[in-house]
Amino acid sequence: MAPVRKGLLERLNAGEVVIGDGGFVFALEKRGYVKAGPWTPEAAVTHPEAVRQLHREFLRAGSNVMQTFTFYASDDKLENRGQTLRITGTQINEAACDLAREVASEGDAMVAGGVSQTPSYLSCKSETEVKAIFKKQLEVFMKKNVDFLIAEYFEHVEEAEWAVQVLKTSGKPVAASLCIGPEGDMHGVSPGECAVRLVKAGAQIVGVNCHFDPMTCVKTVKMMKEGVEQAKLKAHYMAQPLAYHTPDCNCQGFIDLPEFPFALEPRILTRWDMHKYAREAYKAGIRFIGGCCGFEPYHIRAVTEELAPERGILPPGSEKHGMWGAGLEMHTKPWVRARARRDYWENLLPASGRPKCPSLSTPEGWGVTKGHADLLQHKEATSAQEMKHLLEMQKKAKSSA
Amino acid sequence: MAPVRKGLLERLNAGEVVIGDGGFVFALEKRGYVKAGPWTPEAAVTHPEAVRQLHREFLRAGSNVMQTFTFYASDDKLENRGQTLRITGTQINEAACDLAREVASEGDAMVAGGVSQTPSYLSCKSETEVKAIFKKQLEVFMKKNVDFLIAEYFEHVEEAEWAVQVLKTSGKPVAASLCIGPEGDMHGVSPGECAVRLVKAGAQIVGVNCHFDPMTCVKTVKMMKEGVEQAKLKAHYMAQPLAYHTPDCNCQGFIDLPEFPFALEPRILTRWDMHKYAREAYKAGIRFIGGCCGFEPYHIRAVTEELAPERGILPPGSEKHGMWGAGLEMHTKPWVRARARRDYWENLLPASGRPKCPSLSTPEGWGVTKGHADLLQHKEATSAQEMKHLLEMQKKAKSSA
Amino acid sequence: MAPVRKGLLERLNAGEVVIGDGGFVFALEKRGYVKAGPWTPEAAVTHPEAVRQLHREFLRAGSNVMQTFTFYASDDKLENRGQTLRITGTQINEAACDLAREVASEGDAMVAGGVSQTPSYLSCKSETEVKAIFKKQLEVFMKKNVDFLIAEYFEHVEEAEWAVQVLKTSGKPVAASLCIGPEGDMHGVSPGECAVRLVKAGAQIVGVNCHFDPMTCVKTVKMMKEGVEQAKLKAHYMAQPLAYHTPDCNCQGFIDLPEFPFALEPRILTRWDMHKYAREAYKAGIRFIGGCCGFEPYHIRAVTEELAPERGILPPGSEKHGMWGAGLEMHTKPWVRARARRDYWENLLPASGRPKCPSLSTPEGWGVTKGHADLLQHKEATSAQEMKHLLEMQKKAKSSA
Amino acid sequence: MAPVRKGLLERLNAGEVVIGDGGFVFALEKRGYVKAGPWTPEAAVTHPEAVRQLHREFLRAGSNVMQTFTFYASDDKLENRGQTLRITGTQINEAACDLAREVASEGDAMVAGGVSQTPSYLSCKSETEVKAIFKKQLEVFMKKNVDFLIAEYFEHVEEAEWAVQVLKTSGKPVAASLCIGPEGDMHGVSPGECAVRLVKAGAQIVGVNCHFDPMTCVKTVKMMKEGVEQAKLKAHYMAQPLAYHTPDCNCQGFIDLPEFPFALEPRILTRWDMHKYAREAYKAGIRFIGGCCGFEPYHIRAVTEELAPERGILPPGSEKHGMWGAGLEMHTKPWVRARARRDYWENLLPASGRPKCPSLSTPEGWGVTKGHADLLQHKEATSAQEMKHLLEMQKKAKSSA
Repeated sequence: MAPVRKGLLERLNAGEVVIGDGGFVFALEKRGYVKAGPWTPEAAVTHPEAVRQLHREFLRAGSNVMQTFTFYASDDKLENRGQTLRITGTQINEAACDLAREVASEGDAMVAGGVSQTPSYLSCKSETEVKAIFKKQLEVFMKKNVDFLIAEYFEHVEEAEWAVQVLKTSGKPVAASLCIGPEGDMHGVSPGECAVRLVKAGAQIVGVNCHFDPMTCVKTVKMMKEGVEQAKLKAHYMAQPLAYHTPDCNCQGFIDLPEFPFALEPRILTRWDMHKYAREAYKAGIRFIGGCCGFEPYHIRAVTEELAPERGILPPGSEKHGMWGAGLEMHTKPWVRARARRDYWENLLPASGRPKCPSLSTPEGWGVTKGHADLLQHKEATSAQEMKHLLEMQKKAKSSA
Repeated sequence: MAPVRKGLLERLNAGEVVIGDGGFVFALEKRGYVKAGPWTPEAAVTHPEAVRQLHREFLRAGSNVMQTFTFYASDDKLENRGQTLRITGTQINEAACDLAREVASEGDAMVAGGVSQTPSYLSCKSETEVKAIFKKQLEVFMKKNVDFLIAEYFEHVEEAEWAVQVLKTSGKPVAASLCIGPEGDMHGVSPGECAVRLVKAGAQIVGVNCHFDPMTCVKTVKMMKEGVEQAKLKAHYMAQPLAYHTPDCNCQGFIDLPEFPFALEPRILTRWDMHKYAREAYKAGIRFIGGCCGFEPYHIRAVTEELAPERGILPPGSEKHGMWGAGLEMHTKPWVRARARRDYWENLLPASGRPKCPSLSTPEGWGVTKGHADLLQHKEATSAQEMKHLLEMQKKAKSSA
Repeated sequence: MAPVRKGLLERLNAGEVVIGDGGFVFALEKRGYVKAGPWTPEAAVTHPEAVRQLHREFLRAGSNVMQTFTFYASDDKLENRGQTLRITGTQINEAACDLAREVASEGDAMVAGGVSQTPSYLSCKSETEVKAIFKKQLEVFMKKNVDFLIAEYFEHVEEAEWAVQVLKTSGKPVAASLCIGPEGDMHGVSPGECAVRLVKAGAQIVGVNCHFDPMTCVKTVKMMKEGVEQAKLKAHYMAQPLAYHTPDCNCQGFIDLPEFPFALEPRILTRWDMHKYAREAYKAGIRFIGGCCGFEPYHIRAVTEELAPERGILPPGSEKHGMWGAGLEMHTKPWVRARARRDYWENLLPASGRPKCPSLSTPEGWGVTKGHADLLQHKEATSAQEMKHLLEMQKKAKSSA
Repeated sequence: MAPVRKGLLERLNAGEVVIGDGGFVFALEKRGYVKAGPWTPEAAVTHPEAVRQLHREFLRAGSNVMQTFTFYASDDKLENRGQTLRITGTQINEAACDLAREVASEGDAMVAGGVSQTPSYLSCKSETEVKAIFKKQLEVFMKKNVDFLIAEYFEHVEEAEWAVQVLKTSGKPVAASLCIGPEGDMHGVSPGECAVRLVKAGAQIVGVNCHFDPMTCVKTVKMMKEGVEQAKLKAHYMAQPLAYHTPDCNCQGFIDLPEFPFALEPRILTRWDMHKYAREAYKAGIRFIGGCCGFEPYHIRAVTEELAPERGILPPGSEKHGMWGAGLEMHTKPWVRARARRDYWENLLPASGRPKCPSLSTPEGWGVTKGHADLLQHKEATSAQEMKHLLEMQKKAKSSA
């Protein structure tokens, strides 16, 4: 494999902005290749053309990072989620690396191998057992010579530390990204403290991904940065938020919203919302700026376009996009042509077309407080008996609230 | 090219439901291959892999029709819209036919060649001149031996009649689809009258596409059906609506909404909205059921899944989708597992996550009344001088309203 | 009793605008003197000071009409609604006349005696029996020498005609006002036809009151006016709408909204909405402009203020109200002072402060169609047995819908 | 004057709940007797019947407190607000005391004399000067022998302390109530610290009134209670919030909302919202529970009804109100009768009927931060020159934000 021209730390240390990609499981669910619920990435093996095409679209939109499509691709997860095809985690991880590398080499992009939280941790397996899972995934990433590594989508900073410690053994740059909001991780560890622990564990880049909308994620990363700076440590910062507005989330993020995962449409960010995100992230000192669930290629393109003045480049995909709607100058109707300007789109408050729908929801879940989050997380289970027991607990929790 | 196993009329006459595909220009705009404003399909030549992939996704979602990606591919339109690449309409049309045929032959699908309204008509060119444009496109479709023809996206029934008359000469089945709502075409011809005229012109299938949301389109096609039946004629019916909620549209549809085309996100239909659409369309006697702008593959899959009991088949893509959210039974959190049921999703009113946005907008435009629609349409122009003149007219129209 | 200086017809024939008052039952329910459900006006006897004060506030707001607080004060209604006090309808009607006259004589106002629809009609009593009820009320109005008469709040034009025929025998001016929308009365008689019948029955002023919001009422009265003019008849027109926004009502009006009657607050019109109502009503040729349920004195004041240029007078209450918010010029905060201008309030879209509430509701009821409205109305009943039967009917109606 | 049967502290020390009344300036503005902007209470002299009637309605709704209608009745305020009638503050204060006493003696209510923040404090007058103003008002309250005193509607705890110190000299019970939210007073003093300072100044009851909705006020009083308890002090607690939903307020409360004061209608709380408020306030240990701007008599009645189980009494006004809508059992339509139950109203999310309006607004103002609030407050001014200067400052503040 050809080495990438410029590495992640080289870019970040030079003060460059690195554009991430968008979330694959949600995008490919809508295209018909990922099943909601299990959310596993077997399509890397079964439908490589679909995965390759999505990589290409993000590359075209300006992404400098091709994350391997390996979310939930640890063997314990695949088994837990009912993966019944005779495809192993290793096969998926290898295929995903090849696809990412193939497309990355078509442009200015790096390949990032990713690990994420495991069912083993949630069911109280030992540090050794959990680390063994990460090691197995790392072996593939090393064999395929990815450019850097990401430990992402962790709700518990402790498990993320373990992942970082494993990834760190590779000698490659390590980014660590939690799926938490301003209230901190599921044990109540604050964003600042989480970031400090991750940096101490060896991560050069820290931040958040998934679970919350862009503005909430930027706010959380700001808290991380403050924590790191107060501890006199150094790090780079990253954000890869949802492309859904989630002002009504509780500490567990969009999963507890009643609309998750099949009715989130009215919450999808416009490209103009993405301009605001990119600007705020940049102003907050975040230099690895990407996306997660809900991001489509045009969302990443908007991020890239917003930062074009700082970066001096537009993505290839901008050949099919006039900045701030300039393409509408070709429209036949004068009042549509009049929309070809920045302040129109920046100030528009788009209607939902849904007069019987509210603007905010009430999150579900047990209203988990920091005190017993630990217990409850361990109680997550899929067996019928356990579920029955949990529903009773939930009922009691509600009636005593 | 291999002949398709069963033709369109054969299916419809047998009472079968034919599932259409979704709109390509909007889907490919989000993927980075079509420019909003011109909306032209040169990607069929420049990025065939992207077009092929989208065809495949619709096929996988259950589409029985692969429409050639030839929207606005007439030479007059390409020129009018500022197409500066050295690609001719014929090249695009041919490439688009090949891509559609390639994917159609991978499953149970037919290839449909499409023509749509022309700038020539709007600028008062003669019937002969306008028909010459359609003829030129038809030549390609004949050469490539498409399975049937669609005259779609016409705001003026007169121009649609001319298109049908041209397509009819091919001997192939002809479908005709207007982009109108219950108020009728831009000259005020009612849906019933429009349908009668199209049937008399030779269309075997009549209906509507684009511009309005599914329920509005079903309502309009019902009015067409009543008109045809009152005239003692016979036809099949089709609907290919937007995937956007548009209860606040005026007679010109979603183009006049302030959110068009870059802030329509909160209006996107969920898959469950699509179930309702498919059921209502079916109950209304519509048997060619597809989509237009805003439709993603999962929307078409929802249509196919809703009609699975009647049709006896699920699409390939349903291997990655539990009916009514059944895949959530695998989720780790009990309250998310509890969403794995039909009534949950059928009754959910999804929040927008946008508390500062309204639910309805005020359409823009001149509030064109039937009386002078004709005049105004002819006045649509792109030159700077004409635009200035029009804006003055508009100002006067508003001040006298 | 002193005769009023200028009579109703004298004013209307001279082209003057007559300002009505607001609805008493809703206003006094909020003040603690009327019970929602029965809605009967015994407070005229038990708490005259509260009724007198409300009259005074409307007079101060510019009302030229003091309607006697005699809504639902027929003996059959009082009995039907469970009035258990030993107060007769006659006592209430007399006390209400005295209060209205007392306050009317304090300013430029007329006293109007009102009758409204009866339970007797709904339970299929004969024309003679129903008319006997109106006659009994009329006797009081004649004894108390009211200035004119209103037959208002009728859902069935037939009963309104009977009322007009009775009131007409008095020789006093008669106004007739139905609680219908653009779809017509409960038998499906159109607004135009209703108006013609009421004029033929002897009403000099026709229009609508209650059940719908101002814009819907103005639209309905326009239809009445068209009907009367097409029939080559002559009449004056009146509107006394709700002060609630009801764009989501079905043909039976706000009673079928889920919010009726205890959660209508978010729908209350602002004073600026009232300016628009007054202007539209005036432009439609309506010259008796007042209000019904939901109207508070400041709503009537806004109507009076909007028409001040035409009428040349401001109401006494305007000494405590700067036109278009001018009083805010005295505010301490500059950004509040900046709101002291017309275009600010005219264009403001006020937020609900309720992010979990929708903007529209789904009306309840049986979705009564014109065909069997008659039957269903007769089926309205309060006995437990009848109610049980009706609920079963309702269930069946829903399941077959 | 007859002494009241049981004093405020006697009641509170016995653990009783004391029900306050609602705000007079907003209620009387809608009735036509107070001018928005100046908000002064000269109607106590000019229209005593209107003030008396409103007192009676609150008494009937269950209020145990008749607050004298003396808001902004200090001479400096009357002058500042452009009071041009030849009525002195003393005349108003005396008349207001007489009206409150007259109605209080008709039921189980106490008279409370109130002072509120002064323009003198905002324009940096000395402690001596500001206290002189409170002393002058207190003289009237002593002469008229009110039952207790309230220092209310203070944005700065320092001025409230001064007021308490003055009122304390009377020997009568003193309640102190700030118009602040959870962020504290305009100098950034936290609610807990504010409460401690007020108790130390001599207030036996502390709490908040106006500016925020009930739930925000209860939250703020909880913070006050925590502060007092941490300081090992003792106090009773009061809340008199707005009857408007204000989730979108900044630290200065509803005055900065774009809807203030003429388009707040969609935010008005229903009676059922008031049940929730009363319950939460009670659970938080608040025992003086009343209301401020926006409260109408039926709102206070709802508070009284919610606490009927604890207090063992219903207010007189409940003779005209079925608990939880029970009066609807008499309605003619079965589906309206079906609303005569608690869970229907408790769970209803009422629609606004305003599909083009958002659910939340963006507050205006300078986004005052705690640091320079002091300066800005002093800059509030009404002269044209000062206003011009301020608008320039505002512009600069915005452009540098």
